[in-house]
Amino acid sequence: MKKLVIAYSGGLDTSYCAVSLVKEGYEVHAVSVNTGGFSSEEIKNIEEKAYLMGVSTYKNIEAVGDFYHKVVKFLIFGNVLKNNTYPLSVSAERIVQAIEIVTYAKKNGASHIAHGSTGAGNDQVRFDMIFQTLAPEIEIITPIRDQKLSRQNEIEYLKSHGIDWSWQQAKYSINKGLWGTSVGGDETLTSDKPLPEIAYPSQLIKTKEEKIVLTFEKGELVAINNTVDKPEANIQKLTKKAAAFAIGRDIHVGDTIVGIKGRVGFEAPAAFICIKAHHLLEKHTLTKWQLQHKEYLASFYGMHLHEGLYLDPIMRDIEAFLANSQANVSGSVSVTLKPYHFTLNGISSKHDLMDTAYGSYGEMNNGWTANDAKGFIKILGNQNKIYQQVNSIK
Amino acid sequence: MKKLVIAYSGGLDTSYCAVSLVKEGYEVHAVSVNTGGFSSEEIKNIEEKAYLMGVSTYKNIEAVGDFYHKVVKFLIFGNVLKNNTYPLSVSAERIVQAIEIVTYAKKNGASHIAHGSTGAGNDQVRFDMIFQTLAPEIEIITPIRDQKLSRQNEIEYLKSHGIDWSWQQAKYSINKGLWGTSVGGDETLTSDKPLPEIAYPSQLIKTKEEKIVLTFEKGELVAINNTVDKPEANIQKLTKKAAAFAIGRDIHVGDTIVGIKGRVGFEAPAAFICIKAHHLLEKHTLTKWQLQHKEYLASFYGMHLHEGLYLDPIMRDIEAFLANSQANVSGSVSVTLKPYHFTLNGISSKHDLMDTAYGSYGEMNNGWTANDAKGFIKILGNQNKIYQQVNSIK
Amino acid sequence: MKKLVIAYSGGLDTSYCAVSLVKEGYEVHAVSVNTGGFSSEEIKNIEEKAYLMGVSTYKNIEAVGDFYHKVVKFLIFGNVLKNNTYPLSVSAERIVQAIEIVTYAKKNGASHIAHGSTGAGNDQVRFDMIFQTLAPEIEIITPIRDQKLSRQNEIEYLKSHGIDWSWQQAKYSINKGLWGTSVGGDETLTSDKPLPEIAYPSQLIKTKEEKIVLTFEKGELVAINNTVDKPEANIQKLTKKAAAFAIGRDIHVGDTIVGIKGRVGFEAPAAFICIKAHHLLEKHTLTKWQLQHKEYLASFYGMHLHEGLYLDPIMRDIEAFLANSQANVSGSVSVTLKPYHFTLNGISSKHDLMDTAYGSYGEMNNGWTANDAKGFIKILGNQNKIYQQVNSIK
Amino acid sequence: MKKLVIAYSGGLDTSYCAVSLVKEGYEVHAVSVNTGGFSSEEIKNIEEKAYLMGVSTYKNIEAVGDFYHKVVKFLIFGNVLKNNTYPLSVSAERIVQAIEIVTYAKKNGASHIAHGSTGAGNDQVRFDMIFQTLAPEIEIITPIRDQKLSRQNEIEYLKSHGIDWSWQQAKYSINKGLWGTSVGGDETLTSDKPLPEIAYPSQLIKTKEEKIVLTFEKGELVAINNTVDKPEANIQKLTKKAAAFAIGRDIHVGDTIVGIKGRVGFEAPAAFICIKAHHLLEKHTLTKWQLQHKEYLASFYGMHLHEGLYLDPIMRDIEAFLANSQANVSGSVSVTLKPYHFTLNGISSKHDLMDTAYGSYGEMNNGWTANDAKGFIKILGNQNKIYQQVNSIK
Repeated sequence: MKKLVIAYSGGLDTSYCAVSLVKEGYEVHAVSVNTGGFSSEEIKNIEEKAYLMGVSTYKNIEAVGDFYHKVVKFLIFGNVLKNNTYPLSVSAERIVQAIEIVTYAKKNGASHIAHGSTGAGNDQVRFDMIFQTLAPEIEIITPIRDQKLSRQNEIEYLKSHGIDWSWQQAKYSINKGLWGTSVGGDETLTSDKPLPEIAYPSQLIKTKEEKIVLTFEKGELVAINNTVDKPEANIQKLTKKAAAFAIGRDIHVGDTIVGIKGRVGFEAPAAFICIKAHHLLEKHTLTKWQLQHKEYLASFYGMHLHEGLYLDPIMRDIEAFLANSQANVSGSVSVTLKPYHFTLNGISSKHDLMDTAYGSYGEMNNGWTANDAKGFIKILGNQNKIYQQVNSIK
Repeated sequence: MKKLVIAYSGGLDTSYCAVSLVKEGYEVHAVSVNTGGFSSEEIKNIEEKAYLMGVSTYKNIEAVGDFYHKVVKFLIFGNVLKNNTYPLSVSAERIVQAIEIVTYAKKNGASHIAHGSTGAGNDQVRFDMIFQTLAPEIEIITPIRDQKLSRQNEIEYLKSHGIDWSWQQAKYSINKGLWGTSVGGDETLTSDKPLPEIAYPSQLIKTKEEKIVLTFEKGELVAINNTVDKPEANIQKLTKKAAAFAIGRDIHVGDTIVGIKGRVGFEAPAAFICIKAHHLLEKHTLTKWQLQHKEYLASFYGMHLHEGLYLDPIMRDIEAFLANSQANVSGSVSVTLKPYHFTLNGISSKHDLMDTAYGSYGEMNNGWTANDAKGFIKILGNQNKIYQQVNSIK
Repeated sequence: MKKLVIAYSGGLDTSYCAVSLVKEGYEVHAVSVNTGGFSSEEIKNIEEKAYLMGVSTYKNIEAVGDFYHKVVKFLIFGNVLKNNTYPLSVSAERIVQAIEIVTYAKKNGASHIAHGSTGAGNDQVRFDMIFQTLAPEIEIITPIRDQKLSRQNEIEYLKSHGIDWSWQQAKYSINKGLWGTSVGGDETLTSDKPLPEIAYPSQLIKTKEEKIVLTFEKGELVAINNTVDKPEANIQKLTKKAAAFAIGRDIHVGDTIVGIKGRVGFEAPAAFICIKAHHLLEKHTLTKWQLQHKEYLASFYGMHLHEGLYLDPIMRDIEAFLANSQANVSGSVSVTLKPYHFTLNGISSKHDLMDTAYGSYGEMNNGWTANDAKGFIKILGNQNKIYQQVNSIK
Repeated sequence: MKKLVIAYSGGLDTSYCAVSLVKEGYEVHAVSVNTGGFSSEEIKNIEEKAYLMGVSTYKNIEAVGDFYHKVVKFLIFGNVLKNNTYPLSVSAERIVQAIEIVTYAKKNGASHIAHGSTGAGNDQVRFDMIFQTLAPEIEIITPIRDQKLSRQNEIEYLKSHGIDWSWQQAKYSINKGLWGTSVGGDETLTSDKPLPEIAYPSQLIKTKEEKIVLTFEKGELVAINNTVDKPEANIQKLTKKAAAFAIGRDIHVGDTIVGIKGRVGFEAPAAFICIKAHHLLEKHTLTKWQLQHKEYLASFYGMHLHEGLYLDPIMRDIEAFLANSQANVSGSVSVTLKPYHFTLNGISSKHDLMDTAYGSYGEMNNGWTANDAKGFIKILGNQNKIYQQVNSIK
């Protein structure tokens, strides 16, 4: 009997896959990977459904820590917002989910992996590429992509196999994880409409400003309000706190891996606050050229990650750069949460290069004289002066 | 008699310079350059002061249009926010002011130019370098930088020369122009404090949401709510509208040209809305690699501009790139103004690459089959698969 | 009857395609595009063969000028050598050939285009993508890719249709064009062997040094030894001259579009001399940052061109940048040709920024004093000094 | 008595400095740093001269290993040739010399450091900045820069203090080190003349081709012809071998830190062969994007190093990136040395991504089918097709 591992979410598509693969004679092992989006109740629910579909085993893999250490950490180090907008909440998750699933499949001697992606989007690329790269010997099966069934077809198929569930479709489809929640709906299928307030899973419930202090140690969020915890736990706490202010919502339109433009709403309160606070701390502690080059490399890192190319060794090289750059990115950032937005109040760090002992901007400094400044400017301008002279006279 | 042009603002520093240079025997011609910050009343006031200081002539140069076409336009094309924060409001102005002043000085046969910058900041670099590059034959005189006088010294000197003004110092020093207003105060001299609400020149006076439509034509803001006007006029209208919502405030800490970190508050409502709306339109109309390379080049453009190197011919090359990239950046962006923030609702453009005739993200497309997608992924992943195989086996 | 345009080279593969497509009932129109590799004799020979295969019409399109103006010019502006080695001789040609063919097909109302590429290489990607982009309504037919026939199969098929030719295979396959000749052989299929001397089409026939002067006008090669001609004609003359010295040979191993590494020998004497001479002229006439950014953008331009993405609008943006950067790249470069290599002797240009009127390197200059230099260095080093102090004390 | 360390070379300038500083009452300690350019005889000679000038102590610091590990290693990892020409032979040395000298000065409690640079060149910037950054408490003294004496003045001064040496000036000034020898002469003061054959320290003495094998381990040159040695020793051996073929000569014109263009001849046989061989090995073992990003970062690394900004922490971040990228850059490169030039024959590496087990370029592969290729191309071209359609119809 052919052993197959299926990436199972409990939704209609993967349920259809599970049932039909069992019927086709596979020994089906369902696995879900929790990158921060599932509560234990939801996992219990997925498990129940899985067994109902006839799978041989079900396993939920807890991967929040792995997700943080493999990907999220570097997205913070790099202040990565795709096209200056989207924290890559879902893209980043898929990578780690794919790695966990293929690792599980290999460990359990599976000869096949199934996933429920369509042929139209990004996820198929991420899953297929990571599966093929890490386990070229395992065959990939994608019933949804291959069969192009309608929801109605799937529901009827399941019903005909004794699964008479109510597969109601939410008006807004969401995907939740440690680094944010994506939101899709009718509005995101066109270019001109925003998502309505109710589309967002978190609603505004706090209106009174709240000041919090985020502490970073070598670029990692090690404490909130001086309470130390694991970075991934801090991100979850920050999400809870800031979601109550409806912070971190936006809609992104971006380039999919398959070349078309895609639009997606999201709320990612922790990602936004974390990145902006971290970036502010960096502006105080890094040199001009560190800031400049981080920007360029991190932008590529985000793009490559988004496109499923996480296993390209260039990603490890960039991670080495980013990790090295964080040596002095330690200190505290004061943030005030407000309805729908937040402000950064300032930072405190023993690595602060704005240390007034070494000169204050706009005031005359001990470090240099007026003549030093004149000499500096004269020579700094040399090349452009020569250029102008050489090219205007003749 | 040596003819001298002084960059005159009506403030204590440049008034001191004017008087002392007259006393030293120069024929002093005062000039101010209005890059959008002065009302006609303020200009009248500067003029009166100038003559009181004993200058031979006073001239205000209206340079809003020049400022827009020489610099601001490209900052929009490039979505330039220094370190993802600061629209370079003041940096950008100084460049155009310096060019206007030196052009005026040359046209009028001046042998000297004076400006009131200290030896500690960015402005001296911008002024000196542009003056020296465009008019190496003109000598630059900087009494404030050279003499390091205290405010009290200056006031007494002026009093001793019959100018008994009340030179009260505002708690917050501001610099206003087309592209934003900078705000400095005690808080910005340290790293950890925000500016208080009252420090910002514009206060929240509107709390009811307001939807507006911005229309861009080849990257330029040609209309607001379908009322066509010059881009620079539209920016001024947008500033007025959005300032009432207290939009576009932040504090930037950045690298000064002299190598120390400087912190400055600002409000730049039009700059923020304009850039974010323009960028959204670009995300719909440009290809992935256009977006990617614009980011990198524009970031350098902003840095180089900030550092006073506007006359480096690399800036013209980047402008050629940016201008060319805007060919299809035409369309309308819907924006909702809210207290302290704004949201982008969506865009409409005949150049929208999200045009659903060519495939919708997440839905099965006419453009390709499941097998096409599989082939695509297989080959896209080739190199990393080979890399993994070659390097894991051995 | 379905009208079909075939890219025809006179070789075995495209001859097989022509015959079999005629047999399948297409009205076959053969076209070759001369990007500098064919003599008029060779074209005559291709024509004869084409008609022998039963095509309805044959047309050779002379595209050397187009090739130069659409692509080669920008490769010179950008000093493009892929991975610092390969002038993209073939990659660049294919683009222009594809554009010429699809333009011809559209003009002549063809419903199909055929080409002879296999499924293993780069050319299929370049042809297909450009055909599909510029004429999505035209169907592409690729018998070689689809049928995977052996040479023997093809020869027998042709013989069975009355074409009993001697299709002898050269030991080294070459592809010749304006910008160089590629050379493939058994040696290039492995990583460790060089091509033997005889593999190269041009052999060393001159051993006495020869000095030549190349004149550039805004980056274009307008004269050799003061004889003015079209740039593309000058490139051909330079090729002839330098090939006699066996200059410009190398082997490149690079990334194919399909993700595997490919190795190819080439001789490109004009490309090498032209690029190195042009670059030297740029080093004298451009500013530091122009040189720096050109490098980065041109490297991407070369990669994207190589990968067949010439029609991406980012390419037009980069071309705008590159063209703008050439404004002052005018002057003469002295080159000495020697057996297997060449040396650059120096340049002469009225835009030379090394103009000694403005200071000589290593000698004390009129431009600044020792104190100016000290001030310059003191302030230039500010940030790193502060960094060191802040981070070493604590 | 004020303790002073002087960077002493035995030349006229530093001899003048030594004597005059002794006369001014400093306790002068001479130090030279050998980065590969001095033989033990030369060091003995410098020592004798130093004591003749009246210094209290003389010390030669052997720094070849440090030079390699701090700088040269990364120049190889990055294949750094400034503006694609100059291996930064001298620039790189100065950095390490400055660090060694200031470390020596601090360890010995010196209150002053003297060096013999003029105010016109790069070296003053490198020395001053590194001294100031690592020892802000030590005062820098630069008699040559400050006094602007002629050679004749210096010779007479020395004679008047009893040092009646024959300070003959070589027609060509050279600076020799591990990573190459720079050559200056009358010709390099203008733009249009090459250096004559005799200007180069190494002359062609071998004309018969010689094949050698260079072995790299994680990017470092660990063996020549299978004889293992320290990388820095291998570089010295390679220099000797290749100098006999007069390989690696050129003239570079580049941007000095002070903004003027400078021209310098050099011979750097080991640098050229090492970099080209290493780069070839990388082209076989790294992925496309590793090659692409290394190029960009290494180019900046070279520029920043050249400009004396080695202590900027961005340099450590880039080094982390470069070092990480070398994990699989191991294998052997076959090189043939010929008069004035060399050829790379090929490589052998167990990390070679051209491993034919995974597909050969240009031949049909097992890895994918014709249909896979078609699907790949179709989707790869999606965005440009949509772009063309959207923007040509309307």
